[in-house]
Amino acid sequence: MSGKLTVIGLGPGDTRFLTPEASAALEAAEAVYGYGPYLDRVPARAGQARHASDNREELDRAGAALAHAATGATVAMVSGGDPGVFAMAAAVIEAIEAGPAEWRGLELVIVPGITAMLAVAAKSGAPLGHDFCAISLSDNLKPWEVVEKRLRLAAQAGFAMAFYNPVSRARPHQLDTAFDILREELPDTVPVIFGRAVGRPDERLRTLPLAHARGHMADMATCIIVGSAETRLVERPGRPALVYTPRRAGDE
Amino acid sequence: MSGKLTVIGLGPGDTRFLTPEASAALEAAEAVYGYGPYLDRVPARAGQARHASDNREELDRAGAALAHAATGATVAMVSGGDPGVFAMAAAVIEAIEAGPAEWRGLELVIVPGITAMLAVAAKSGAPLGHDFCAISLSDNLKPWEVVEKRLRLAAQAGFAMAFYNPVSRARPHQLDTAFDILREELPDTVPVIFGRAVGRPDERLRTLPLAHARGHMADMATCIIVGSAETRLVERPGRPALVYTPRRAGDE
Repeated sequence: MSGKLTVIGLGPGDTRFLTPEASAALEAAEAVYGYGPYLDRVPARAGQARHASDNREELDRAGAALAHAATGATVAMVSGGDPGVFAMAAAVIEAIEAGPAEWRGLELVIVPGITAMLAVAAKSGAPLGHDFCAISLSDNLKPWEVVEKRLRLAAQAGFAMAFYNPVSRARPHQLDTAFDILREELPDTVPVIFGRAVGRPDERLRTLPLAHARGHMADMATCIIVGSAETRLVERPGRPALVYTPRRAGDE
Repeated sequence: MSGKLTVIGLGPGDTRFLTPEASAALEAAEAVYGYGPYLDRVPARAGQARHASDNREELDRAGAALAHAATGATVAMVSGGDPGVFAMAAAVIEAIEAGPAEWRGLELVIVPGITAMLAVAAKSGAPLGHDFCAISLSDNLKPWEVVEKRLRLAAQAGFAMAFYNPVSRARPHQLDTAFDILREELPDTVPVIFGRAVGRPDERLRTLPLAHARGHMADMATCIIVGSAETRLVERPGRPALVYTPRRAGDE
């Protein structure tokens, strides 16, 4: 079977994060599938079909791209950030697992990208400079109790944390609940970074102590990093403080 | 103060992972500092000084680059993968914190890169497709007991895990101890991926169940991903199985 699907990480925001491997894969594609705002970042190319879809239709989108590839075409699926981190790679593989046997014969290539937490971390210093975890706060696909359990264990483990999908209109209060749980487990002074639209022209970064972190400070375009008990600030005259987690750990 | 230090993530292996932002920062530098094998990946440029150092001299290297920038120069420090993940960004900020006050007046820019776990994950499927953590197994900078505690809590939390610095000549048995701990907490069937030199010509990927994972299968160039209890294999005729962690979680 000659069809091929390439799942491409665009990185956050503009093309300065787009790797040469991702650019080459976009050029080679006969058709590109993806969530509308991500597709809009891909320059139009003569003869290349584009199929935009809604953000909530991940499995349908994956199935459409796989069915297209199964006709023998070279198809691309674009994803913000890295496709393997709370993005399209897992959805595509779920679709392969549940789909017709011929989809398992397709060539599948996953092209990594800069995921949001790495861009937010770079902008603020090195808050993920030691052991850390990444958690989706969405309860679309897991019970909220699982999120709460993971937050407590992550804090007890001493991980810095990155939160993806921190809020939505359907669950405006859960992020406040998450901060309440962390305040039970961590010092009030732990730095919390809200990175919104990092890598885009309207990028905004805000750092404040856990004691003052509130759910309304985030929207779905925000990636949040919560430090560990060891995460520190280095103050600088005339510049924002640097936030970093030392490489040395364990004086706990 | 006009000096500038840019800490640049080269990504894993060859230049197909080097972002346009990283390329531009390398071009702009008057001098480039870094661990020898990373510097070797940067094409030579007329008039650009290169300062290679040993891998164990991170704080010295950071200090040398900062002192150079403080003369008013535009200096680059290169890092494999992403500089914010077990790499040079935290070391540079530690050096700023401990160094002369004038270093706080320098412009510091951190350019993110594709970190090893994202490249290994992309090669194998989507093993980090749901909540996950990243742990350095080195006990150079933290007591081994902290590593053991984090492994247990991460397994109990249901995180997939990526291990950096999994072994060294000084501690050949610790990775076996880590697998023993995980076998107490997780099913024997959990997939373990050993990704060595991913993105380089001698790249090697090996996946096997936790029951059969052994410390001698890794060296310092290996990034290991251990699935959660929900991580699955999708078998394919004539192709390696895809390893993925479903986006849906919590049937635990």
